[in-house]
Amino acid sequence: MIIVMASDATDGDVEHVVDRLSDIGAEAHVSKGQLRTVIGAVGDRAAILRLPWEAFSGVERAVPVLKPYKFVSRDHHATDTVVDVGGVPVGGNTVTVMAGPCAVESRDQLFSAAAAVKEAGATILRGDAFKPRTSPYSFQGLGEEGLELLAEAREEFELPFIAEVVDPRDTELVSSYADLIRVGTRNMANFPLLAEVGRQPKPVLLKRGFTATIDEWLNAAEYIYKEGNHAVILCERGIRTFESQTRNTLDISAVPVAKGLSHLPVIIDPSHSGGRRRLVAPLSLAGVAAGADGLIIDVHSSPETALVDGAQAILPGDFSTLMKQIGGIASAIGRAI
Amino acid sequence: MIIVMASDATDGDVEHVVDRLSDIGAEAHVSKGQLRTVIGAVGDRAAILRLPWEAFSGVERAVPVLKPYKFVSRDHHATDTVVDVGGVPVGGNTVTVMAGPCAVESRDQLFSAAAAVKEAGATILRGDAFKPRTSPYSFQGLGEEGLELLAEAREEFELPFIAEVVDPRDTELVSSYADLIRVGTRNMANFPLLAEVGRQPKPVLLKRGFTATIDEWLNAAEYIYKEGNHAVILCERGIRTFESQTRNTLDISAVPVAKGLSHLPVIIDPSHSGGRRRLVAPLSLAGVAAGADGLIIDVHSSPETALVDGAQAILPGDFSTLMKQIGGIASAIGRAI
Amino acid sequence: MIIVMASDATDGDVEHVVDRLSDIGAEAHVSKGQLRTVIGAVGDRAAILRLPWEAFSGVERAVPVLKPYKFVSRDHHATDTVVDVGGVPVGGNTVTVMAGPCAVESRDQLFSAAAAVKEAGATILRGDAFKPRTSPYSFQGLGEEGLELLAEAREEFELPFIAEVVDPRDTELVSSYADLIRVGTRNMANFPLLAEVGRQPKPVLLKRGFTATIDEWLNAAEYIYKEGNHAVILCERGIRTFESQTRNTLDISAVPVAKGLSHLPVIIDPSHSGGRRRLVAPLSLAGVAAGADGLIIDVHSSPETALVDGAQAILPGDFSTLMKQIGGIASAIGRAI
Amino acid sequence: MIIVMASDATDGDVEHVVDRLSDIGAEAHVSKGQLRTVIGAVGDRAAILRLPWEAFSGVERAVPVLKPYKFVSRDHHATDTVVDVGGVPVGGNTVTVMAGPCAVESRDQLFSAAAAVKEAGATILRGDAFKPRTSPYSFQGLGEEGLELLAEAREEFELPFIAEVVDPRDTELVSSYADLIRVGTRNMANFPLLAEVGRQPKPVLLKRGFTATIDEWLNAAEYIYKEGNHAVILCERGIRTFESQTRNTLDISAVPVAKGLSHLPVIIDPSHSGGRRRLVAPLSLAGVAAGADGLIIDVHSSPETALVDGAQAILPGDFSTLMKQIGGIASAIGRAI
Repeated sequence: MIIVMASDATDGDVEHVVDRLSDIGAEAHVSKGQLRTVIGAVGDRAAILRLPWEAFSGVERAVPVLKPYKFVSRDHHATDTVVDVGGVPVGGNTVTVMAGPCAVESRDQLFSAAAAVKEAGATILRGDAFKPRTSPYSFQGLGEEGLELLAEAREEFELPFIAEVVDPRDTELVSSYADLIRVGTRNMANFPLLAEVGRQPKPVLLKRGFTATIDEWLNAAEYIYKEGNHAVILCERGIRTFESQTRNTLDISAVPVAKGLSHLPVIIDPSHSGGRRRLVAPLSLAGVAAGADGLIIDVHSSPETALVDGAQAILPGDFSTLMKQIGGIASAIGRAI
Repeated sequence: MIIVMASDATDGDVEHVVDRLSDIGAEAHVSKGQLRTVIGAVGDRAAILRLPWEAFSGVERAVPVLKPYKFVSRDHHATDTVVDVGGVPVGGNTVTVMAGPCAVESRDQLFSAAAAVKEAGATILRGDAFKPRTSPYSFQGLGEEGLELLAEAREEFELPFIAEVVDPRDTELVSSYADLIRVGTRNMANFPLLAEVGRQPKPVLLKRGFTATIDEWLNAAEYIYKEGNHAVILCERGIRTFESQTRNTLDISAVPVAKGLSHLPVIIDPSHSGGRRRLVAPLSLAGVAAGADGLIIDVHSSPETALVDGAQAILPGDFSTLMKQIGGIASAIGRAI
Repeated sequence: MIIVMASDATDGDVEHVVDRLSDIGAEAHVSKGQLRTVIGAVGDRAAILRLPWEAFSGVERAVPVLKPYKFVSRDHHATDTVVDVGGVPVGGNTVTVMAGPCAVESRDQLFSAAAAVKEAGATILRGDAFKPRTSPYSFQGLGEEGLELLAEAREEFELPFIAEVVDPRDTELVSSYADLIRVGTRNMANFPLLAEVGRQPKPVLLKRGFTATIDEWLNAAEYIYKEGNHAVILCERGIRTFESQTRNTLDISAVPVAKGLSHLPVIIDPSHSGGRRRLVAPLSLAGVAAGADGLIIDVHSSPETALVDGAQAILPGDFSTLMKQIGGIASAIGRAI
Repeated sequence: MIIVMASDATDGDVEHVVDRLSDIGAEAHVSKGQLRTVIGAVGDRAAILRLPWEAFSGVERAVPVLKPYKFVSRDHHATDTVVDVGGVPVGGNTVTVMAGPCAVESRDQLFSAAAAVKEAGATILRGDAFKPRTSPYSFQGLGEEGLELLAEAREEFELPFIAEVVDPRDTELVSSYADLIRVGTRNMANFPLLAEVGRQPKPVLLKRGFTATIDEWLNAAEYIYKEGNHAVILCERGIRTFESQTRNTLDISAVPVAKGLSHLPVIIDPSHSGGRRRLVAPLSLAGVAAGADGLIIDVHSSPETALVDGAQAILPGDFSTLMKQIGGIASAIGRAI
């Protein structure tokens, strides 16, 4: 921790900070410049982070040197983690494509999409039974019935599936069906939910909050990890910016940045970031080229009738074409789908 | 709903939209310009909103004319709502000040702050027993023990109190103790939690998500309202922007904007928006001048030892001075504290 | 400057940084923690800032301790600066109100607004002859003819006036007429223009770029100051955020933050930040309550016919009412208009 | 234009809008819903856009259907424009790579970088003689001497070059030397400068303002285009967001969005968006995969000694490796470098 003293800090203020550091067993390295005194604190990270340094008299600001997360950082684990999702690896040399409808609406809708994505080469099926919706008047998902349909589709098409959980009380239910539990963007900072999925025996896909910094996202992963669940996949899905021609702005740089800071696999969601069908292909290809370990794509056989997010779902035929392009980009960078 | 067709939309595309509108009993008003055709849809709002118009062939974008929320809007209820919090009114001609420590840490800490804020003129006590923290290694609150201390302080100082709930499973517990339930900024879009607090017999203070638009905030209020709980207070507490000298940017305009769109009372949180002690006074005064119905302020007798957010807590003496200034601004605009 | 080394930095990397600091006459204070080494650099600020530390091998990041601006900072000049605008003070105990039409459109339009704002108590007239417009097809101002009308109005109503300059080639022209030169939000980082206004004998109002940090804004003020013009007034006018119900988000915290960092006066523009007429009054009052040294307000006798920004102009009658409210808030905090 | 009336608009308000539309020769299509009346205005776009509809009594908001730019839009010109830069095409099937130092510092520095980028396959040389810098104390460029060195390098290495102009008064000078004039991100809304470059006989690369919407960027291109210069290349270079691990957030979606709205070529700048050397490769590959028509990359033989932006410059050896990867991605999508 670097503690920058204000220009009007007294010697007593500096001493007080040094004393408190000493109380907690940390060393204080004091540098006096012409206009500011700076104190470098070296010692037990957790103990130093715990004190509210900016509340101390004469302190202008405190700049942490280390990140608050530990287990998910590269400092802790240098090599890339590969997560196993019902037999399908995420991370490593493969680019894994998860695809299917945003929400499970009916057996027909789900099975027609599942057949199409399987045929085109996707290896994990997506489809949600619980949907968090901005308006209370929108379709909220089929619940357990949806999970049962997904389990049936898994048998039929030999595709493990991913499904979202939105309520800590439903975590065990979703976990008992799904091969991969998704924590959605609105729940990235829902700490009770993170703790619950951290106790499940299934891997977790953690979407970045659309307004979360990369550090906050990794802190959220730490919540899951520290409960004992080490099978965490990160998913970048666009952040909120001032640009309004896209639903969100896909933060493509987050792929290399998160992979630099953490050993966890990182995938991208080209469907929800752009929010428009015609952006799905360019964003998918960009994601793979930037080094993403996978993609999660909305595919719907009849977007016009979709109950959720129809505007961004692509048709099975377009998905099939896209899979070929994804394969081309993957091999250009020495990876396979 | 206004449906703007793309420049290359065919007559068939236009017809198809008109037919679907007719299917759901809505009228279509078609205006053909030189470069674009625009279709105005008039009829049952919910039915029109339900269809994913942007997924239709030839549609460039769909612009809703009406807001998706209904009960919390001024269209539904023209006069200002006044919410009763354990006998204290929020809304109307009064500027209500809620104050106390961010988190309950101990009986002494709570009681010393409570005595001070009571003495200075606050009418509602704040103090949390459950805290949502970005890092899993930070203090998470005292839980039920904290609620018991708050209840004791209520008796001792005759101050109703507000406390946060962060988990739907704790909602009844918090509701059984508190006079006003708070939904924090990170949980504004935690829909299961909103539904739970919507079923409680206590009023709810709904903080704006630090990355939520005003419309999303009012949608969240609608979630609570439609479950039957009409005693909702809105709280602006700063939004995330690119500026980093403040923790968040207090959106002072949100006060008149939200009060224009909704009949619910709106207060501001000057402590968490700025994140710095010396911003609390100017932001408090600005909030009252802009028309806020109240303030919620962190006060701590010893910020240096605070387990949560010490950097923004003000001392009892400064709070007392601030209360006098707040009173001055309130009377300048014809209100009272 | 604090230089944080990467976890995989070698001893050679650390030594290399220390050597380069020594080369430029600076001291290096090295703190070795368990996971990171941190180097505090103490010495000539400008020399240290000049080197691209983040380009050095093994450096993770470089955190400046001091701000890059000097003359405009409180470190340089502790007491508040008061700027004289044609005899009217800006800064100090007065709250100065500048008002008038956004753009000068005609003699009648200008004079009718000038008469009204004078009558209501404004002490500086606003009105632009050059307008920067997003679309090349919008009205761009009357040019010198507009300046002449402003000069006439100054005589008639005994009001010094403020006018915008958008092109370095017009700086002398504007300066020769106006009492206060305005640099608009889009030109805050137009460095040749800043240098030009820095050489004029007239005070300058520097609007914050709607996407500029407070530090960038003060750097821009430094450009003007260091050319010799010390009569600089800062103007907060809203920043770009994700919220779309207001044109920009007035950053009310910027008032106390900028006044803490700099000795220059700070005013706010409630008209352009909100972009809506009904927000002008609450934002004006909030600005004064937060400690702003003045306001600049669009007033137009016939907003419907305004060639620029009619939606945010208030009518003379409303301005007159607002001036009374401003006076009330000002006296509540011990200031006068 | 869609004009949405407020819920409390009177019949007179509606009539007044309809009358004004009729005055300017436009048709009004009135749709009365249960809660709002909506007026669709059809007619001459420019005439309709000119009136400040939101200033009219009873108008809640006015939603434009058409974009304010015309010549740069796909509506005006359906096929892709290819811009000739000193014999090198930008747009069409080629992915054009521009590379070199951020600023020209000396003959040696420029020539060593130029030799390297030529060797690796770049076809346009970058290097600036005028630099806009946030701080007045930073290096501002060599001026005309820098342009002369660039012209020499052009002869020596047979590479046309691109250089920035920051002052309208230098436009002819820069234009007389450079093959491609660059308007930097801070000057995207410097309208006098846009008008000047619009009158030059050289093509223009227009960087997106780091806080500009895509529409504002296209409006800026329109400023250039309408002065007669049709050789405009758009360059996405990152936008300002809340994420601070990157200098700016590369808006990768802007590539397909801008190419959908406009016929102009779009390239990306992977160096200035990320601001970090190790992000240059992944962002370059992502840009090409997303459909960008080219890249502009900072290459410096000794980043540690760079006077500008050393942290993001890559070494010649890394550039050479990157060019091979770019070639691989380009051929995967059927393009060539």
